[in-house]
Amino acid sequence: MEPVLFYGVPHGCSFGSIVALEWLGEPYRLCRIDMLSKPEGEAFARVSPLGETPALLLEDGRALTESFAIMHNIGARNLERKLGFAQGTPEFDRLNSVLAYLHTTFHSAFSPAWAAYKLAEGDPNREVLRTLARDKAVHSYEHLQDMVTGREWLAGGDFKSMADAYFIGIARWGEDLGLFDLRKEYPRLHRHMQKLEADPGVIFAHAIEDENPATSSGGFRGHVTLDELNPRLAA
Amino acid sequence: MEPVLFYGVPHGCSFGSIVALEWLGEPYRLCRIDMLSKPEGEAFARVSPLGETPALLLEDGRALTESFAIMHNIGARNLERKLGFAQGTPEFDRLNSVLAYLHTTFHSAFSPAWAAYKLAEGDPNREVLRTLARDKAVHSYEHLQDMVTGREWLAGGDFKSMADAYFIGIARWGEDLGLFDLRKEYPRLHRHMQKLEADPGVIFAHAIEDENPATSSGGFRGHVTLDELNPRLAA
Repeated sequence: MEPVLFYGVPHGCSFGSIVALEWLGEPYRLCRIDMLSKPEGEAFARVSPLGETPALLLEDGRALTESFAIMHNIGARNLERKLGFAQGTPEFDRLNSVLAYLHTTFHSAFSPAWAAYKLAEGDPNREVLRTLARDKAVHSYEHLQDMVTGREWLAGGDFKSMADAYFIGIARWGEDLGLFDLRKEYPRLHRHMQKLEADPGVIFAHAIEDENPATSSGGFRGHVTLDELNPRLAA
Repeated sequence: MEPVLFYGVPHGCSFGSIVALEWLGEPYRLCRIDMLSKPEGEAFARVSPLGETPALLLEDGRALTESFAIMHNIGARNLERKLGFAQGTPEFDRLNSVLAYLHTTFHSAFSPAWAAYKLAEGDPNREVLRTLARDKAVHSYEHLQDMVTGREWLAGGDFKSMADAYFIGIARWGEDLGLFDLRKEYPRLHRHMQKLEADPGVIFAHAIEDENPATSSGGFRGHVTLDELNPRLAA
């Protein structure tokens, strides 16, 4: 069977992996995981021991966790698509540097706001946590705006890369969580986001997350459930 | 000039990059950055715009930030050394997955404890932050202990990899920050650490950090200062 990506809702960072799979254009399937109603039980634990998304079940039965590793796996499937770059090149260096920044500093800036999101309305800690997240994310939005200034794509080159795919799945959190007005506060970065939001792969990934009719311009072969995957996971 | 690694003291996660350079065995230099007495000024900002370590100044004048990218650059210099693995292989996937886990979940678990370290003695927030760090790091130590159980090295294979180099620079924080007694609490993981602590590259990296006499079994060509690097950085 084609690879299966386990993506998390609501608004998981797995969004970028869906986009990358669309851009790759090769057959794949999706399995939806509700991150708020964990645990998904033993079957999912065999794919993702820590219960995290994204996870990628590969053709040979191996399960791969961590966005960074999944992105690299997708990119290496066809270097001609230029989602990734050949190991040992300056482009590979730059891509890794940008991806690492997005996965560590940028992603973790929002952790307090996600913790706040799970608290009850009216809990006084909500505002404390949201302010903490905003204070951290300010630096990242500034740095990312500098990064896209004067270049077409985040990791450089003439083509959108895995860095742009991962970026758009995280950058939206600033507005999703009500922390920023990005159009006003970071207009150049917002334009980069708007360019990505108009991309068919990104439009598709939103439709998938929101359970709207989704048109793949890539190799999407439909959803599978954990139950359907059980025999394959038990093997 | 050979590549120059900017490493941070005290106890930076750049430790792993020093170890990886020793294991690679090719010529390199080091530049010491005191992370507590920032800023280092304009010269360092040209290497590391956010003032973070590690950073790697490459032979062609490019500067590379983020441990993950630096590790991949070092590994790709000589795949025969097996610090890294060829792009597109299952070993490459596993290495990326382990490295990503160490860089995101494991590294960030200690953030509150590092924040506590910078507070004045007697500040009541110190214990709150230390407890938070311990609660997070417990899960990582458990997961990492499971990972090394039944295998010789973290990312598998017959040889220590970049994952082990990065791991030993972070795993020590549990005891450095006084949060854990790893020998007692995670004996199998502690044995993996002891094996790494006996490695000449790790012994060298400790001596460098502590400013003790350091014997390189690799290609260490000495320290350079930011002042000495200034002409190269201004170019």
